[in-house]
Amino acid sequence: MITLTDIGEFGFIQRFSENFKKNLPDGFEGIGDDCAIMPYNNDEVFLITTDMLVEHQHFLPDKIKPVELGYKSLAVNLSDIAAMGGTPVSAFLSLGIRPNTSLDWLDDFFRGLKHLADESGTLLLGGDTAKVTSSSVVNIAVVGKCSKKNIKRRSEASSGDVIVVTGFLGDSGGGLKVIQDDLPVTLDTEHLTKRHHLPRPHIEEGMFLSSFPEVTAMLDISDGISSDIRHIMNSSGVGAKLEIDKLPLSTQLKNAGADHRWDLTGMALNSGEDYCLLATIKRDKYYALNTAFNEKFNRPLHAVGEITESGHLEYLIHGEKMRSTGSGFDHFQRSRK
Amino acid sequence: MITLTDIGEFGFIQRFSENFKKNLPDGFEGIGDDCAIMPYNNDEVFLITTDMLVEHQHFLPDKIKPVELGYKSLAVNLSDIAAMGGTPVSAFLSLGIRPNTSLDWLDDFFRGLKHLADESGTLLLGGDTAKVTSSSVVNIAVVGKCSKKNIKRRSEASSGDVIVVTGFLGDSGGGLKVIQDDLPVTLDTEHLTKRHHLPRPHIEEGMFLSSFPEVTAMLDISDGISSDIRHIMNSSGVGAKLEIDKLPLSTQLKNAGADHRWDLTGMALNSGEDYCLLATIKRDKYYALNTAFNEKFNRPLHAVGEITESGHLEYLIHGEKMRSTGSGFDHFQRSRK
Repeated sequence: MITLTDIGEFGFIQRFSENFKKNLPDGFEGIGDDCAIMPYNNDEVFLITTDMLVEHQHFLPDKIKPVELGYKSLAVNLSDIAAMGGTPVSAFLSLGIRPNTSLDWLDDFFRGLKHLADESGTLLLGGDTAKVTSSSVVNIAVVGKCSKKNIKRRSEASSGDVIVVTGFLGDSGGGLKVIQDDLPVTLDTEHLTKRHHLPRPHIEEGMFLSSFPEVTAMLDISDGISSDIRHIMNSSGVGAKLEIDKLPLSTQLKNAGADHRWDLTGMALNSGEDYCLLATIKRDKYYALNTAFNEKFNRPLHAVGEITESGHLEYLIHGEKMRSTGSGFDHFQRSRK
Repeated sequence: MITLTDIGEFGFIQRFSENFKKNLPDGFEGIGDDCAIMPYNNDEVFLITTDMLVEHQHFLPDKIKPVELGYKSLAVNLSDIAAMGGTPVSAFLSLGIRPNTSLDWLDDFFRGLKHLADESGTLLLGGDTAKVTSSSVVNIAVVGKCSKKNIKRRSEASSGDVIVVTGFLGDSGGGLKVIQDDLPVTLDTEHLTKRHHLPRPHIEEGMFLSSFPEVTAMLDISDGISSDIRHIMNSSGVGAKLEIDKLPLSTQLKNAGADHRWDLTGMALNSGEDYCLLATIKRDKYYALNTAFNEKFNRPLHAVGEITESGHLEYLIHGEKMRSTGSGFDHFQRSRK
């Protein structure tokens, strides 16, 4: 019997995506990007995304506080809206919980959810609840909107484009390591666990970048850049070079990494859930755009590589080719590839 | 410690609905009806609903075929769209599954889902997958649309309105009993299990009824009429009388009920998942509307009671008052009320 384990998450998506894509009317786009698209009005479209978080798989109940879980459950969805250049409008929560869940836990969960909803202007409009007997499940669907001319897809990158990221890489993975290894609390490790539990969706950054036609493709970093860049490669039919000595690392990650002898490059490349944005920019416009970004956000876009014609993903260190160090996280397969 | 068990599903909704309802901009409506409402264009609104089905809670894996589960997961959502008078546009599937799930199972699940999606004109636009280690979880969110002037809410019923249902009551509950008690397969019991596993969302009926201003309130019967009528009572600030000798029972339910000595009245009142529609109609327009319904669908609307001023739910048998026989299903409480 062939099971999901045999084909993995991407195999699953490939096999069943055919159920979703066929014969869509004009203006509709299905799976294959961060959000689905539905027609709205002459100038705007609706973006829709949904994410399911499962206890013990996506979060550890004795490690994440309910207020953080409420926040994070919405954040990962808002990040998908941001990745296409949109703004969130409304959210729908489905909560599968054990009957012995305390009201205090639920109050805290909703406080975290509501905090980010209010901060991001997302209306909590509806949902469902169900009883589970083992792992809790949080599913959120978010509807957003985006100016038609500003939508950024994964499919429009072309050879020569500069690959940039809007934030540090590996912080969330470092935070997960702190949690898993139960490392001592320092200012550094605390910063990393906070990045893991309370990732900030880059909505403002996404809106800003989406307003420039020279930004050719965009997505959010959820599985790790080494995995996420492949979505752009596959959708755009291009290759990519990543310069691993240019991956932006936070001071806190460097400090904790030095203390605990972490493979920081592997972490920055392969650990997921940083939820900053990965974009490709026409080379001749990169300098001006970076300057504008810096002026607006008071920090740079980090150039980490270049789109190529090759169809392959290459890693460079100080300009020299090197071997791959892994490729992101697959939820269904037995181990990391 | 106060837990969910102590306050029940409706207590839960009451406690946390405040997180959802506050300060909504014009044109938005949150929880409190079958769907949330979002502005679309001058003539239409968007309807959004989501339902989470959990293995062992909402379905038994060795009793329901995957093709039926795929169908039913979408059907329960389409029923919510139908309940407000809308038509479905798109659906988003989140699937929490065990890694050892066979591809055959998944193929069948998607076949059932796709069948109803195609039949109802619903576009499968996106979703998410997650690994679970115990019970599978299916969450579907559906976006529909509805003409603004036709939206039917729970809140507009008034004293004197006739209460009608668009189909037989108790068939799904009978089917569940056949499954739970492992009763012999006959034409009758097979019909009932089919009604339990493949409920037909009353989209056409909902659209038809919603086009008449004399239909004052509408919802779908998901928890049992004795429970669902209370949503109209609470939202509209009214009471209701249900005439239990008028509850429409299918021949198959009567036959199986006679064979197995079922409490058919209890089943028709309190068992859920029939997914036909419950509507209230201005008394002076009921006769003409029933005639029109009959002409279109070749079967009658079943009048089962009347909206009253009292604020209470009363049961009548042959015109005489009787005691309640229960009130629907609560997912979190220890036993039926």
